[in-house]
Amino acid sequence: MIEQIRGGLTAPLGFRCGTACSGIKNPKATRLDTALIVSDAPCASAATFTSNAVKAAPVRLSMTHLKAGKIQAVVLNSGNANACTGPMGMEIARRMAEAAGDRVGLKARQVLVCSTGRIGIPLPLPRIEKGLKALTLGRTSSRKCARSIMTSDTFPKEISCLVSTANGAFRIGAIAKGAGMIDPNMATMLCVITTDAVVSQPVLRKLLRTAVESSFNRITIDGDMSTNDTVIALANGASGVTPQPEDLLEALDAVTQTLARQIVLDGEGVTKFIAIEVQGARTARDARRAAEAVANSTLVKCAWAGGDPNWGRIMDALGYSGAKLQEDRVQISYENLPLVQDGLAAITPWKKLKSIAARKEFTITIDLALGSGTHTVWTTDLTQEFVRLNLSE
Amino acid sequence: MIEQIRGGLTAPLGFRCGTACSGIKNPKATRLDTALIVSDAPCASAATFTSNAVKAAPVRLSMTHLKAGKIQAVVLNSGNANACTGPMGMEIARRMAEAAGDRVGLKARQVLVCSTGRIGIPLPLPRIEKGLKALTLGRTSSRKCARSIMTSDTFPKEISCLVSTANGAFRIGAIAKGAGMIDPNMATMLCVITTDAVVSQPVLRKLLRTAVESSFNRITIDGDMSTNDTVIALANGASGVTPQPEDLLEALDAVTQTLARQIVLDGEGVTKFIAIEVQGARTARDARRAAEAVANSTLVKCAWAGGDPNWGRIMDALGYSGAKLQEDRVQISYENLPLVQDGLAAITPWKKLKSIAARKEFTITIDLALGSGTHTVWTTDLTQEFVRLNLSE
Repeated sequence: MIEQIRGGLTAPLGFRCGTACSGIKNPKATRLDTALIVSDAPCASAATFTSNAVKAAPVRLSMTHLKAGKIQAVVLNSGNANACTGPMGMEIARRMAEAAGDRVGLKARQVLVCSTGRIGIPLPLPRIEKGLKALTLGRTSSRKCARSIMTSDTFPKEISCLVSTANGAFRIGAIAKGAGMIDPNMATMLCVITTDAVVSQPVLRKLLRTAVESSFNRITIDGDMSTNDTVIALANGASGVTPQPEDLLEALDAVTQTLARQIVLDGEGVTKFIAIEVQGARTARDARRAAEAVANSTLVKCAWAGGDPNWGRIMDALGYSGAKLQEDRVQISYENLPLVQDGLAAITPWKKLKSIAARKEFTITIDLALGSGTHTVWTTDLTQEFVRLNLSE
Repeated sequence: MIEQIRGGLTAPLGFRCGTACSGIKNPKATRLDTALIVSDAPCASAATFTSNAVKAAPVRLSMTHLKAGKIQAVVLNSGNANACTGPMGMEIARRMAEAAGDRVGLKARQVLVCSTGRIGIPLPLPRIEKGLKALTLGRTSSRKCARSIMTSDTFPKEISCLVSTANGAFRIGAIAKGAGMIDPNMATMLCVITTDAVVSQPVLRKLLRTAVESSFNRITIDGDMSTNDTVIALANGASGVTPQPEDLLEALDAVTQTLARQIVLDGEGVTKFIAIEVQGARTARDARRAAEAVANSTLVKCAWAGGDPNWGRIMDALGYSGAKLQEDRVQISYENLPLVQDGLAAITPWKKLKSIAARKEFTITIDLALGSGTHTVWTTDLTQEFVRLNLSE
């Protein structure tokens, strides 16, 4: 049984965290921009990173640290992504891990690093070093951590749960920040998950990959993929409870899916949350192509912004998706109302379809009737407000 | 030597055309919506069609006719795309070819058909049949033809040239209509080219493919690809002049590139024309991926709308394009001003870059420095006006 509890990152036993106003963007600012999360004991650790070929320095550093050591801390900052910063950026990321390690008596390689914010600008390391020295670690700062990594997000994203299993109860907590590329460059999807469950590193890595696949890898707001995207899971075993892998996966799913949803709903200029469920594709890959083509079509997304249950644009997107398609087999429905039947306009009254497209949330089901491939994507509308927010820095 | 002349489609000898107000959308309307283009003699013919798996009935019919016969006429309509209309749509397209053929004493299979406008709605055939009977063919209606196929276009697109070669002079003319998916569904890129040059069908087909590759296949406005896109070339040989293939290609390039440019500039809500020139990619395919990722990035296009010479979003798009990339080799420039050098922000004063990004037209050159692959794409900014225009039907 999964029950929501308070505490965020520090709901699980044996984790502490703290934040600071390092003044990364502006030394005089009093905005939280630095966070440190520490486990009392070494953790089984797992992470997934952006597949963008242009990877920020902290991503490349964290990939190395993850391979090497027993991770015990994560340091994060907003205001500067330390991306496209060359060898100097790598050196700064390394020193940031070192400063975080020094603060809590760990080696640099036991620390993962996440940065988000402006790209191509040197990260002012001394300010972060000062911020890290000043911060207080405790068990009440998770929400402030969630706040400190916000960029264009309008609310902090946090969740924590108590998970009761046949083997005993453990806790899981997480913070995240959303996508939407801004200021003037890219923001980033970041997520840190803590748990006091006992789990081996290989199992945690496998479960995290699976959970990310059906949460963060399902969401698309602007179709762009950041240089800094990172999801980290740390399991310190402090509960002494070893859950069945399926129980831990269920907990990871609950946490990552809740946060992924929050990220979509908090996307720039977003007014709608839309699930695209493709079924009956020849292969799973085809299903993914079809779902992503529809979810990323500028024109389909504009229609949703206007509350228009447009089907021509959806058929068109399916047509160029690269998925195998037989036009006269395609079935599309908004919630349970048929929109397209056998490739032709369904007889559902337009007014009924419009009333669904006017909702803040709805699901579109697309059946290609060619096989058993399925894939779901969560997407949004595309509004004038989104364009306005992204006109420039 | 290529010299622009008057006459459009009927600048070449032996072509006539005419238009009608068939009232396709509204029987009472007086808007031109039907066009017929006829050659006095059978033509060498070539065409390229949308690669969308969802192909409109007229596209499928024209593909068949092109394979079978000596094409001598093209019938076009706006107001209804006859797409996603099932077997009935095919029958209507066939009858439309028949009606056009009857009008000028040709067999249905000698006629190609193009439709653009709303999708999923039965095309009112009797109205077109009536329109075709009423129209007058002559050598002064090319501009009206260009006007009759407009949907969201704001101006008719037409060009004609006199081409003087060592073998003698011939003429080439063309009309086109633009992209931008509208009303409520998709519009379409259509282009009909006429020439009185003597050319064999295989050569014309090869040359048209080449010309389309560096014109219409280079443009992207909204990243969506219509169900109806068609480019047709008819060569009736009436000049008696057989140009060298390179001379005919030059003429085709001049005509298609001019129209492609006009289409981009007339895109919905477009305020800028931007050429993305990728060079130094590992392969031509990589160059294309890189250019298209940048040209289609919602965030990059929003930045241009704001006159922001954003480079982070461009690096990001290159990173996820799938093209092989080495971050520290990437060079990007706006016109001749370096924006990114060796993957890092160039030292060019930002003010200078902004003055280029503020222009109505500029070229961005991206050198991946990994090989000799090149590709150019013409694209636009993405404005609030575009979203507004596409909110619904």
